[in-house]
Amino acid sequence: MSARVLIVDDVPANVRLLQALLEREYFEVHTAMNGAEALDAVQRVKPDIVLLDVMMPDMSGFEVCRRIKSNPLTRYLPVIMITALDQPEDRIEGFNAGADDYLVKPIDELALLTRLRTLVRFKFLLDELENSIGEELLLDTRLDVDSDVPARVGALLNASKGNGPLMDWLRAHHRTRDYADPVHLLEDVRAGRLDAVLLDMPLPGHDSLRICSQIRSLEKGRQLPVMLLVEQARREELLQAMEVCASDYLVQPVPLEEFRARLNIQLRRWRYIQRLRESVRQSVTFAMVDPLTGLYNRRYLTTHGRALVEEAAQRGRPLSVLVMDLDYFKKVNDTWGHDAGDEVLRELAERLRKQVRRLDVICRVGGEEFVVLLPGADARVAHQVAERLRRAICREPFLISAGGGKRPLEVTISIGLSSYERAEDTLETLLKRADEALYAAKQQGRNCVVRQRAA
Amino acid sequence: MSARVLIVDDVPANVRLLQALLEREYFEVHTAMNGAEALDAVQRVKPDIVLLDVMMPDMSGFEVCRRIKSNPLTRYLPVIMITALDQPEDRIEGFNAGADDYLVKPIDELALLTRLRTLVRFKFLLDELENSIGEELLLDTRLDVDSDVPARVGALLNASKGNGPLMDWLRAHHRTRDYADPVHLLEDVRAGRLDAVLLDMPLPGHDSLRICSQIRSLEKGRQLPVMLLVEQARREELLQAMEVCASDYLVQPVPLEEFRARLNIQLRRWRYIQRLRESVRQSVTFAMVDPLTGLYNRRYLTTHGRALVEEAAQRGRPLSVLVMDLDYFKKVNDTWGHDAGDEVLRELAERLRKQVRRLDVICRVGGEEFVVLLPGADARVAHQVAERLRRAICREPFLISAGGGKRPLEVTISIGLSSYERAEDTLETLLKRADEALYAAKQQGRNCVVRQRAA
Repeated sequence: MSARVLIVDDVPANVRLLQALLEREYFEVHTAMNGAEALDAVQRVKPDIVLLDVMMPDMSGFEVCRRIKSNPLTRYLPVIMITALDQPEDRIEGFNAGADDYLVKPIDELALLTRLRTLVRFKFLLDELENSIGEELLLDTRLDVDSDVPARVGALLNASKGNGPLMDWLRAHHRTRDYADPVHLLEDVRAGRLDAVLLDMPLPGHDSLRICSQIRSLEKGRQLPVMLLVEQARREELLQAMEVCASDYLVQPVPLEEFRARLNIQLRRWRYIQRLRESVRQSVTFAMVDPLTGLYNRRYLTTHGRALVEEAAQRGRPLSVLVMDLDYFKKVNDTWGHDAGDEVLRELAERLRKQVRRLDVICRVGGEEFVVLLPGADARVAHQVAERLRRAICREPFLISAGGGKRPLEVTISIGLSSYERAEDTLETLLKRADEALYAAKQQGRNCVVRQRAA
Repeated sequence: MSARVLIVDDVPANVRLLQALLEREYFEVHTAMNGAEALDAVQRVKPDIVLLDVMMPDMSGFEVCRRIKSNPLTRYLPVIMITALDQPEDRIEGFNAGADDYLVKPIDELALLTRLRTLVRFKFLLDELENSIGEELLLDTRLDVDSDVPARVGALLNASKGNGPLMDWLRAHHRTRDYADPVHLLEDVRAGRLDAVLLDMPLPGHDSLRICSQIRSLEKGRQLPVMLLVEQARREELLQAMEVCASDYLVQPVPLEEFRARLNIQLRRWRYIQRLRESVRQSVTFAMVDPLTGLYNRRYLTTHGRALVEEAAQRGRPLSVLVMDLDYFKKVNDTWGHDAGDEVLRELAERLRKQVRRLDVICRVGGEEFVVLLPGADARVAHQVAERLRRAICREPFLISAGGGKRPLEVTISIGLSSYERAEDTLETLLKRADEALYAAKQQGRNCVVRQRAA
């Protein structure tokens, strides 16, 4: 994995040292000698991650970090603070400034590279999702992340150990759930019921890293924050933990302030990723659905219809198409108003939906015009389906709002039918034939089904 | 990184060996002893990657691979073939069956883990994108990947070396471009002008891996296929290459058939990722745009409008809202038909667009109703903009199609205006006030601008 790294330090020797290390690992390195240069480089170079010295003249690293994190455009750019200050209060100041991690000099090279890779992976995932969202919705999505609501935190801890104050705080501020058995924890991860996991390491009778890797192998667990509470800082073991799966680790006893800060960082990232995913999913769904009826729209008809025709052509699977139209719908709108018209359309959609199989596709393609794709249905079966749909509409009157109450209204539909018959057939020819059949159905007095064969 | 790995081998000792290795690295291992079990496990376990033995009774590994790859639902599941057969024709048979990679026994553990990690990263990216797309569009997207068109391949090769037959084939079948200077190659990668890169290693005067990592540090280069043509197989160097950045490497002299097969695998993956991205982007764009006019829709108005109001509240940035309506539009539709009405709406959108700044947002929120958000504009500025918009519509008649020709039509709009004035203001209150102002504008005779202040 390669990435653009920005190193910020006012001591040239420090910069050279880090630069040599990272270039040996084939990272693309950019450098800045002070806060102003750093902020400028963040805009210009667009690094994937920033390594930031704390003690600099003019502007401290804490301040640089705060500025990066307070700009919505760079809020989620990963920042690792690097410093000679190793008091808990310094670390906490760093985290409160928004830093994603905090390493103390002299730098442990392997530890740096491990954390760098973890954060770069996170950044790449963000980039992918942010590109999906696109510029126009990105800022809105970023502003929309709510970080103050309680999180669902799962804890699998050594019962005999004293995590007292930490757990008390957690229970007071988040929706905490204790597990005795990893199986139940994994079940909840699989079902997407957790926002973070706390694991003791070691755990009597269990391998904490194995549990962690099991979480990661679940689709909903891939980016889930998993924090290890370790008893003793064994360097190799911790590096392996970070490499394999942990999001972060804390060596006991953990100052409450630091735990809180680190948990917040993890939750912030997790929530932003979730928010982005949700936003993309909503858009994609919205793009194929008619908002009034919840049926598919014309765009989806086109994409999916083409794929179905291709399948019919290649695998000889039958395919039929219904085009249907509400009879005398203009009169409904003119007499009872548009709201009543909308009620009719929604009720119609509901009745149609109940009559078809899951793989059938019902689309609203215009005001009162609908198309149904019936994969696997030949003309005979499709005719039965069409008759069933027609009857489902005319059998019982619709109830519409009028004059403060409900009143019944007779509604009927006319249906045109066509089926895939020959190699030249495309979605367009099928729709055209079904349209012609619909026209014939209207001519024949409406409330009926007509089929049009290929010429 | 952890992932679900399916090991398929009919010899229990082989399975145990691989299983122990992968579990030591904290992968989640599932196993199958023959082809039928393997195909079943692929559906049931949903592995992230399959390690597949070639020589098995009943069904060979080649056949298992072909079946996995011919099912659209598992077509892009990575498969590594593992075999004692190391003749070029065996490798080619594996690749033609669709295998993503091919390792010869005895297994080089590090080589296996390196390739496993590369393919798992690819799989995770796919999962992310496929989840964005969602079930409904996924199959259509998969069917829609066109793998037979020529690709844009960039080659940076040692001029003095004889890559003759290989390059001849490449030039005949793909759009190949030769580079002498990596700077130009990187420019083209940055601009998204390439589908694959071939790099000689070593390259006189250059560090091939450095070039490769520079490609990876560009956003458009992250998943781009980069294939190394290496002179000598130095194990450590090749593993580092794969770890850092290369998509694949080929040791010279490369049989043309194998080169072709490996390039195809890379292109297939690349194109699928590109297709998925495109499909997501299209949907997201479609979800916020009105198809008739290309203006933003009501959904985008709501998301973006809320973010702008929040900004106005937090940073004191002015914000104004215009609600506008075409005067007597129903008459246009009734007299000249819906197509003429659509022409008017499109021309109107065009004229509005020309009058506003890039950050202003014009939405079509109903048949003939439009909303414009003006961030940074106070009531005075917004009034000027509104007047400008009004005049841009009434100044010159619209041309509509009628009776086979074009005829001029006088069109006017009425505009209601409101501005962010106080902390209680929300998008809803702003729209409500602008609506009231619009009503007043209609009362005052239309073709005018009215502002409504907060009560």
